Amino acid sequence: MPNERLEKQIAFILEIDKAKQVLRRTLLLDRSRPENDAEHSWHLAMMALLLAEYAATESLDLFRVVKMVLIHDLVEIDAGDIFIYDAARRVEKEERERRAAERIFGLLPEDLTEEMRSLWEEFEARETPGARFAAALDRLQPLLHNYHTQGHSWRQHGITQDQVLALNRRISEGAPALWEYAQGLIEDAVRKGYLDKGSAAS
Amino acid sequence: MPNERLEKQIAFILEIDKAKQVLRRTLLLDRSRPENDAEHSWHLAMMALLLAEYAATESLDLFRVVKMVLIHDLVEIDAGDIFIYDAARRVEKEERERRAAERIFGLLPEDLTEEMRSLWEEFEARETPGARFAAALDRLQPLLHNYHTQGHSWRQHGITQDQVLALNRRISEGAPALWEYAQGLIEDAVRKGYLDKGSAAS
Repeated sequence: MPNERLEKQIAFILEIDKAKQVLRRTLLLDRSRPENDAEHSWHLAMMALLLAEYAATESLDLFRVVKMVLIHDLVEIDAGDIFIYDAARRVEKEERERRAAERIFGLLPEDLTEEMRSLWEEFEARETPGARFAAALDRLQPLLHNYHTQGHSWRQHGITQDQVLALNRRISEGAPALWEYAQGLIEDAVRKGYLDKGSAAS
Repeated sequence: MPNERLEKQIAFILEIDKAKQVLRRTLLLDRSRPENDAEHSWHLAMMALLLAEYAATESLDLFRVVKMVLIHDLVEIDAGDIFIYDAARRVEKEERERRAAERIFGLLPEDLTEEMRSLWEEFEARETPGARFAAALDRLQPLLHNYHTQGHSWRQHGITQDQVLALNRRISEGAPALWEYAQGLIEDAVRKGYLDKGSAAS
């Protein structure tokens, strides 16, 4: 069955198996091992389904949010996972991810390349309410994992409360009620010694 | 912030982290380790987005298909993964999965419990076009993995071509063109020695 279109779709489906090998800094909740991008993306998609009511907008296109979180980290197959607190490396990250998007989404038939690229670009730009909600989930999930693993990744990298607040504040843009909840977790993490208060009193 | 509803949603989100620990029989494509349920579910959701055009129906509710595949294996957190060729254990499987659905979806607020349960029951019943398409993907993905790992799981369990054809025939109900493609893979797997021809000439 020589079907060029289907062959391209299957080639992409096989290629993205590699997302299961891209390791993140956060641990599974039982602390047995780091989480990978495929698991993380699945978890975000589930969170989108379960927490949609907290989105900052009433006209949320939830299916599009789910699509965005499912594909948002595929570029890391080539570009790798960059620790979000590592500001220096975040600069080169953009260029590497752009090249990765080119190659990976380019495996698909043209219409699907366009669809995947537009989802990824919308997610990255964080300009639409859906992308802001997706970005909020992408911050909340590691925060939940850090809190429930006694601050594993924070302590390992000497991250302070100021940094956590600064980096996660974008949750408020996409889902104000979840930001309120997240702030409660962050305060409690400091109280419990999972997270250093840091120098400033921001 | 004492918000009972949100606390229940978060409790469920934390609970389903365990799906990342439920191991399946299929290997990752690089054969480094078995795949887990969270990764598998993410992969199916991606396949749904990419292969929707092959669904047997023209009125596919694709978002519902994506939701079904995202949640379809959550019951295995309690019930475990049962090898699909193990007919004896498939009998007790149903009862264990029903209890698992009760407990796991029951962690959520009532409206979400209902929604998750109804998605899972629709997937299990395979009576709607969407559920049939979801089921087709749930068979095609391990078949792709088996083929591209030189029949690892087939050879490990002495599975024959007849069994593979019988078990995967349901792909034809949900996505005829994908069944045609799958049959090509199965024939090629026999030719390449990844899969035994078996006794009958079915």
